[in-house]
Amino acid sequence: MGGERGLLLAVDAGGTLTRAVILDPTGRCVGFGRAGGGNPTSAGVPAALESVFTATAMAAGQAAGRIDLSLAAVAMAGAVHRGLGDTIRDRLAPLGLDGPVVVEPDLLAMYHSGTTTPDGHVLVAGTGSVSAAVRGGSLETVADGLGWLVGDAGSGFWIGHRIVRRVADAIDGVAPPTALTGLLLEALGLTASAERIRGRPLVLMELIDRVYAERPVQLARFAPLAFRAGGDPAARDILTEAAASLARTLAAVRPAGSAGPVVLGGSVLGALLAGDSTLAEPLTTALGPAERIPVRDGLAGAAVLALLRRGIAVDDEIFDRVRRELAAVQAETAGEERVALPW
Amino acid sequence: MGGERGLLLAVDAGGTLTRAVILDPTGRCVGFGRAGGGNPTSAGVPAALESVFTATAMAAGQAAGRIDLSLAAVAMAGAVHRGLGDTIRDRLAPLGLDGPVVVEPDLLAMYHSGTTTPDGHVLVAGTGSVSAAVRGGSLETVADGLGWLVGDAGSGFWIGHRIVRRVADAIDGVAPPTALTGLLLEALGLTASAERIRGRPLVLMELIDRVYAERPVQLARFAPLAFRAGGDPAARDILTEAAASLARTLAAVRPAGSAGPVVLGGSVLGALLAGDSTLAEPLTTALGPAERIPVRDGLAGAAVLALLRRGIAVDDEIFDRVRRELAAVQAETAGEERVALPW
Repeated sequence: MGGERGLLLAVDAGGTLTRAVILDPTGRCVGFGRAGGGNPTSAGVPAALESVFTATAMAAGQAAGRIDLSLAAVAMAGAVHRGLGDTIRDRLAPLGLDGPVVVEPDLLAMYHSGTTTPDGHVLVAGTGSVSAAVRGGSLETVADGLGWLVGDAGSGFWIGHRIVRRVADAIDGVAPPTALTGLLLEALGLTASAERIRGRPLVLMELIDRVYAERPVQLARFAPLAFRAGGDPAARDILTEAAASLARTLAAVRPAGSAGPVVLGGSVLGALLAGDSTLAEPLTTALGPAERIPVRDGLAGAAVLALLRRGIAVDDEIFDRVRRELAAVQAETAGEERVALPW
Repeated sequence: MGGERGLLLAVDAGGTLTRAVILDPTGRCVGFGRAGGGNPTSAGVPAALESVFTATAMAAGQAAGRIDLSLAAVAMAGAVHRGLGDTIRDRLAPLGLDGPVVVEPDLLAMYHSGTTTPDGHVLVAGTGSVSAAVRGGSLETVADGLGWLVGDAGSGFWIGHRIVRRVADAIDGVAPPTALTGLLLEALGLTASAERIRGRPLVLMELIDRVYAERPVQLARFAPLAFRAGGDPAARDILTEAAASLARTLAAVRPAGSAGPVVLGGSVLGALLAGDSTLAEPLTTALGPAERIPVRDGLAGAAVLALLRRGIAVDDEIFDRVRRELAAVQAETAGEERVALPW
């Protein structure tokens, strides 16, 4: 086929945003695109597929001339169905993909966004939470990432869920008042009142109606309220317990004294580590003297995985180029992303 | 119209079972019927309506001759929609209902199943949990009953949910081993193994698949495992916290030193109070010297409410007759009910 041979596609299909980059074998970025959520578990396979297609089409549109993509690495959360790679390949064929699709765990892409060291650890806390030991560039053991109902301890959902339960208890008179009540009612556009209906506080019935009308995982959007509640004891308790939960998740895959860096991702983890040091204490203790590498997302790592799966050794020069070029292209659209992200 | 004038219909529409009784103004039971779940919130209004219809049809079939029902009291959980009474009346008209339908909170029916004292309290913990102060025979204040996502602290769902999370943590290496793991895997028909897939324990992935395939509230069926786990510390922690949560819910509507009896309902509450006294300590402390009246369900109370709404004073003679006759008719079908109930 004609056009620029040997280009690679890397996609980071996240819960809120899907990002795609087309790069050459030296790590130079020739096209970048974005679309909505691409998590096949939360959004469903058809919607995830469309986000991957749209982001790739945008990236292909930026790249000059006819694109010939020899391999695609797609980083995705959740238990990935067998055959999903083939489904993605078929969908992307009209965009110039003429090679295999490698579906990679988003967690592994997150790790490779941070470091070229083959052995280390990664801890992510955004809407969900998960940690892993990476050995020889691959996932060795993974802890949590079990979703809102069974796991995701210390995640945005976990914090938002606890806020809603704690506020309900406060309105119900089961627990002491908390500053979280005003913040949550404001976020929901509700007004506190003393009115009762059938023995129950009216505002609590309104709150219940709102919360049950949504998918449970959407409670994650209330997590920022805990960081905005100042010194409120209930909010502090929730955040301290979140940090302790995340420390336990990391410790499950990283025995004390382990070598290698720890890559840190996700908005909740970032907020916990940037905030009051007392809150983050369980986490900083668990991290110990390890090198901490904060990362923004898994896109650079997906690009690294695309290069590696194509048999290209990613040295520091290529790695730095990938990160620099992606940082530049993402900076151009950062304003838009900030609107799209829940934080 | 012909037939036996002035009969009353009472229905207790629960989450698992709907029970209907036709009674005369002296509290004598002339027909009894049962059907599936009748909770309009969890089962949906059409399914709940069909359960109410079926149970009533069975009761009408037992009653000799043509039935003429002058009033129906239907006890239901959840926030009841305005107009539901009229919908039920239209559906039951072919069965001989020629009068109003009064929809009553199931919690109030539970209270009236236990006592004729107008002032007192009621605490229920089955799949969900809720408590109320009753004043002059009506609900005054209600605490919790907010459903599995926001409330129901100490309920069957709450216990089952904590069991599943605790077992997931144990398999994941995030928390110490617990006897609950073997019990839960057995209940799910899963076998423990050391195999890992993409860095995760295989059995944990299987557990996750099962749990997310169901409605969250179905986790309540695992609550009995906590009572069967013997002295397992994790199980004891869960049950002690459940008892403490229920004690807080009761305390929210019942200031220390309150007069009047406390009516106690629901399988979880029964199991907590019948078990190890250390586990139930927060509850027994909260109950203090109050008269404790355990009740099986809200059917007798629904019958009492039907009589009261018809303007009939329910004295001890009528109350005892209602309870005696219902106990007799329910004893005949108790074997079947035991199969239908999750406990």
